[in-house]
Amino acid sequence: MTHSFDGYNYLIRLQRGERLSAALEQFIVETKIEGAWLSGLGAATDITLGFFNLNLKDYKWRTFGQMMEVVSLTGNLAYDDVGKIMFHLHGVFADDEYQTVGGHVKGLVAGATLELFVHRSYEPMHRIRDDETGLQLLDLT
Amino acid sequence: MTHSFDGYNYLIRLQRGERLSAALEQFIVETKIEGAWLSGLGAATDITLGFFNLNLKDYKWRTFGQMMEVVSLTGNLAYDDVGKIMFHLHGVFADDEYQTVGGHVKGLVAGATLELFVHRSYEPMHRIRDDETGLQLLDLT
Amino acid sequence: MTHSFDGYNYLIRLQRGERLSAALEQFIVETKIEGAWLSGLGAATDITLGFFNLNLKDYKWRTFGQMMEVVSLTGNLAYDDVGKIMFHLHGVFADDEYQTVGGHVKGLVAGATLELFVHRSYEPMHRIRDDETGLQLLDLT
Repeated sequence: MTHSFDGYNYLIRLQRGERLSAALEQFIVETKIEGAWLSGLGAATDITLGFFNLNLKDYKWRTFGQMMEVVSLTGNLAYDDVGKIMFHLHGVFADDEYQTVGGHVKGLVAGATLELFVHRSYEPMHRIRDDETGLQLLDLT
Repeated sequence: MTHSFDGYNYLIRLQRGERLSAALEQFIVETKIEGAWLSGLGAATDITLGFFNLNLKDYKWRTFGQMMEVVSLTGNLAYDDVGKIMFHLHGVFADDEYQTVGGHVKGLVAGATLELFVHRSYEPMHRIRDDETGLQLLDLT
Repeated sequence: MTHSFDGYNYLIRLQRGERLSAALEQFIVETKIEGAWLSGLGAATDITLGFFNLNLKDYKWRTFGQMMEVVSLTGNLAYDDVGKIMFHLHGVFADDEYQTVGGHVKGLVAGATLELFVHRSYEPMHRIRDDETGLQLLDLT
């Protein structure tokens, strides 16, 4: 994982084989960032996607093992309710026939490259646990 | 709908059950914003998607009633030709088998959460009616 | 292609029938931009998508000739290793049944409209050739 800063925002590039979660944790430690909006593209494998079932208040997970193009990656970084920065990312991924799948991104491993734009928040971002769903929701109040 | 401002840009969070159109109208009234670029993710139901048919100069609509992950939401806010701020959003949505659909977003109802990043424009954004298509297109001249 | 600048970032609108590559080249010449993050939506036809095969170190291409909604477009502008600004964009596209395809975007022709938000980088962005993959990867070191 390498990153750059232009005085306002960050770029991140993952090396082939790097885990997204580890790379983001390292980025958070190195930059001390306290909130951000993310956008990304590239390639990935071992992509674990979730679908949130409101009735069960839980995610249904599936891992896509093959190499796919990361055709959209959108989300953010914010403190959770125990004071740890967590990422919340949703993504769309395309296979070698250009067919797409998508969902809540639990994890993935970078392919040839993975590029992220990190739009810094000028205020810390926070999440708070929502009892109705069990999720950590953005606390904007 | 709650929103926050870091001095530069906004975050919006929709409550479960809120309509996107009503939330954005409220946001526009409360912030007096005159142009923005939007990015979002979350979950939604009752998603009405359009495909624009150039020959018919009209949209073909379909509503997806089930709960889906909002895996990408991209667009903007700008004045239309009668001076009302309108949203133009396209989205990608994933079902419980991670299969995706996409289109021009007419409306949706927030699921467990819907998070939007609103990148403020420092100049008002305007649309103008295009006679050839009947659409309101960005006026950047 | 028309574009506007709010003092910080750019908006681009492609005319119906314009090629994305030509429009971006014109934009780069006119603005002298040296790095940017891009986000877009609209409609397009003649969309050539790639899937990068790591074993072959090459893309597999397919062109989708029909009109599709551009439901997500994400990427960036950066100098390549011979000093030419290149675009790196991935996209998701929806047909008239709302079904989606996605991939690395080699080219497309704008439909009724194509709208891009160009988030300027305050430092030039550079790519460097990666011998292992043959790709030009972001150089953030």
